[in-house]
Amino acid sequence: MLQNNDFLLEIPYGMRDFLPHDAAIKRNVENVLADLFQLWGYNEVITPAVEYLDTLTMGNKDELNKHMFKFFDKNNRTLTLRNEMTTSIARLVASRMQAENLPLKLSYICKVYRYEQAQTGRQCEFYQAGVEFMGNEQPSADAEIIALAIKSMQKSGLKNFQVCIGQVEFINGLMQQWQLPNTVQTDIRMALEKHDLVKLEQIADVIDLAAEAKKILKKLPLLHGKEEILQQAAQIADNDKSRKAIENLTNIYQMLTEYGLAEYIVFDLGVIRDFSYYTGMVFEIYAPGLGCPLCGGGRYDNLLANFGKACPATGFALGLERLMLALEKQGDLEELINTKDNYVAYADGKLAEAIDKAMLLRSAGEITELADRPQTLLQAEEYCNDKGYVNLVYLQ
Amino acid sequence: MLQNNDFLLEIPYGMRDFLPHDAAIKRNVENVLADLFQLWGYNEVITPAVEYLDTLTMGNKDELNKHMFKFFDKNNRTLTLRNEMTTSIARLVASRMQAENLPLKLSYICKVYRYEQAQTGRQCEFYQAGVEFMGNEQPSADAEIIALAIKSMQKSGLKNFQVCIGQVEFINGLMQQWQLPNTVQTDIRMALEKHDLVKLEQIADVIDLAAEAKKILKKLPLLHGKEEILQQAAQIADNDKSRKAIENLTNIYQMLTEYGLAEYIVFDLGVIRDFSYYTGMVFEIYAPGLGCPLCGGGRYDNLLANFGKACPATGFALGLERLMLALEKQGDLEELINTKDNYVAYADGKLAEAIDKAMLLRSAGEITELADRPQTLLQAEEYCNDKGYVNLVYLQ
Repeated sequence: MLQNNDFLLEIPYGMRDFLPHDAAIKRNVENVLADLFQLWGYNEVITPAVEYLDTLTMGNKDELNKHMFKFFDKNNRTLTLRNEMTTSIARLVASRMQAENLPLKLSYICKVYRYEQAQTGRQCEFYQAGVEFMGNEQPSADAEIIALAIKSMQKSGLKNFQVCIGQVEFINGLMQQWQLPNTVQTDIRMALEKHDLVKLEQIADVIDLAAEAKKILKKLPLLHGKEEILQQAAQIADNDKSRKAIENLTNIYQMLTEYGLAEYIVFDLGVIRDFSYYTGMVFEIYAPGLGCPLCGGGRYDNLLANFGKACPATGFALGLERLMLALEKQGDLEELINTKDNYVAYADGKLAEAIDKAMLLRSAGEITELADRPQTLLQAEEYCNDKGYVNLVYLQ
Repeated sequence: MLQNNDFLLEIPYGMRDFLPHDAAIKRNVENVLADLFQLWGYNEVITPAVEYLDTLTMGNKDELNKHMFKFFDKNNRTLTLRNEMTTSIARLVASRMQAENLPLKLSYICKVYRYEQAQTGRQCEFYQAGVEFMGNEQPSADAEIIALAIKSMQKSGLKNFQVCIGQVEFINGLMQQWQLPNTVQTDIRMALEKHDLVKLEQIADVIDLAAEAKKILKKLPLLHGKEEILQQAAQIADNDKSRKAIENLTNIYQMLTEYGLAEYIVFDLGVIRDFSYYTGMVFEIYAPGLGCPLCGGGRYDNLLANFGKACPATGFALGLERLMLALEKQGDLEELINTKDNYVAYADGKLAEAIDKAMLLRSAGEITELADRPQTLLQAEEYCNDKGYVNLVYLQ
């Protein structure tokens, strides 16, 4: 035994323990989401947390590489802890679910890992819940995904939130129309991703571009608001790709109106998301007072082809800890904690009766703790109050 | 894009994908267990899968070290993926739950990792569900743990299984009485752990020990059966420690009779489990046709002291995949799959009505998939049958 073993109590940077209160909320939110995904006909799949780095970086930018935990298997191939689930599910569908009829509607709830600075509601290890809708290229699939994301928030008990929808092809169309070099396009995408308006202005000021186009570029992040944004954007869109992008969003919006969910929607043509695999509609969900999105997703029609199965797809992932944080801010947490019903305590020699009583209450579905040793009534009352049980059953 | 990207579809050795059928069973078994643990007053906690190697090897044998995934943080400290949960929970209780009144009853359901040869129902990444009862040294706590393990099997739907209970102090007492050197004690423990009777005979034959004691040593793994084994063992137990061990098992057995669970119990004084931290009662649960235990646990009164909090404790962990395998062998799986209720399909132009209908059915708690595009009735019927929905709702 060491004299000073405090260092044994440490956990690595970016890791988190959930004590009972938070673990109970997490379990209940997870159950709400698992039930909801199933109710909409999405089937859960589970993939390993450990995958080959080769596999998981296939569809992503090289730079994400830096933010992954890396280690080696016994043959010296690089392993990693997955940093998101969409690529793993694409891998799964392209290998073990090849024979299934399309569309495939899949869901997951699991841990993912990013070895980067811990953020609000996101440690280096965190939980994501999400769905993937594979095999359909229509706006109706995107609308279903957004509707299910909104229902996920509602069913978890979140009251105030907003869905910001963008379309990466709108910006791609403009940049191609302006014939911007790839390096400049990348710089612009990074500035948009970080909502860095100063950077965007700087880029616009130095590049070789007509004055009118520069004005449009600087204005991109300001294309944010209700459906009138789509009309404004349509006026700007002087090329086929950008026009089709706006038409696509118009269709999605109309279907979200059918779902009765239009009130949650705003458009933000500066939203492009942080994974390079998105090819169409992208969206993020925000709650007041939380600067980071709770949920994000979009269409990724080319990712599966990397694994040998060309197939359009759309989906979302939500951050469970961020959703819990938003619920906490909106004061809706206590409904998610189950009532602790009974504490069954007993005097000396009454253990057998106490066991019978506890088993009976549990059979009736009541949360029931059995005292760990004979107690006086006073001791039993103290423990019962301390642990928050509603009823004390004392056998003497 | 690569020409041949088959290598991208591989997953590392010992990893596993769960397709929808298995994932659904896993989700339902997990829910059964989470509800049961809660019903018995056990509070779930969650610890990170990534911990410092120093922390997790504190209470374990050095040799386990070999079977852990290892990697490094940015300060070159060795990280590992946890190989079991008991040590992490001891760390948690000794750090962030110091102020809580004892006893503490905690539970978990999570992934653990062992970088060793994949076994029946156990890949290198696998799920464990378990509980820890901390702060009580009485046989009543051990009885509660065993009773809860049995209920876990029952509630999951498993019909045939057997609980083998041992007591490490029975063997420790004998080996001390015989004044065996530590190296020999270790060899004997390893032979018992592997059920290696030949090895045990060999050890007995070569060591310096009275003939009567040699006979007892060889007979140890044969001390297996119903409660009469306790009488046989009591006759062998010619020292305080071994006698107390048998008395302890007698008390535990009597309480399991109060729980109405005696029928599941056999005693096996050769059971010592594979973690060195056990200090008293140990047990394993077996199902017919499966050569490995589904569940194991026992008393570990010294582990928490390693983290600066002296505190007796007892607990168990069950292997979720092994339990699922046993359920499959006993043909009880289909009850764990929810019925897929409705497939809502629609003719061209009827999407809005189909959305309304699908949302209505989901509100009523029915699992409902909305068709991904307009279909003919024939197409809808084919898809509905292929995916196994009970009802087809067709809007035209």
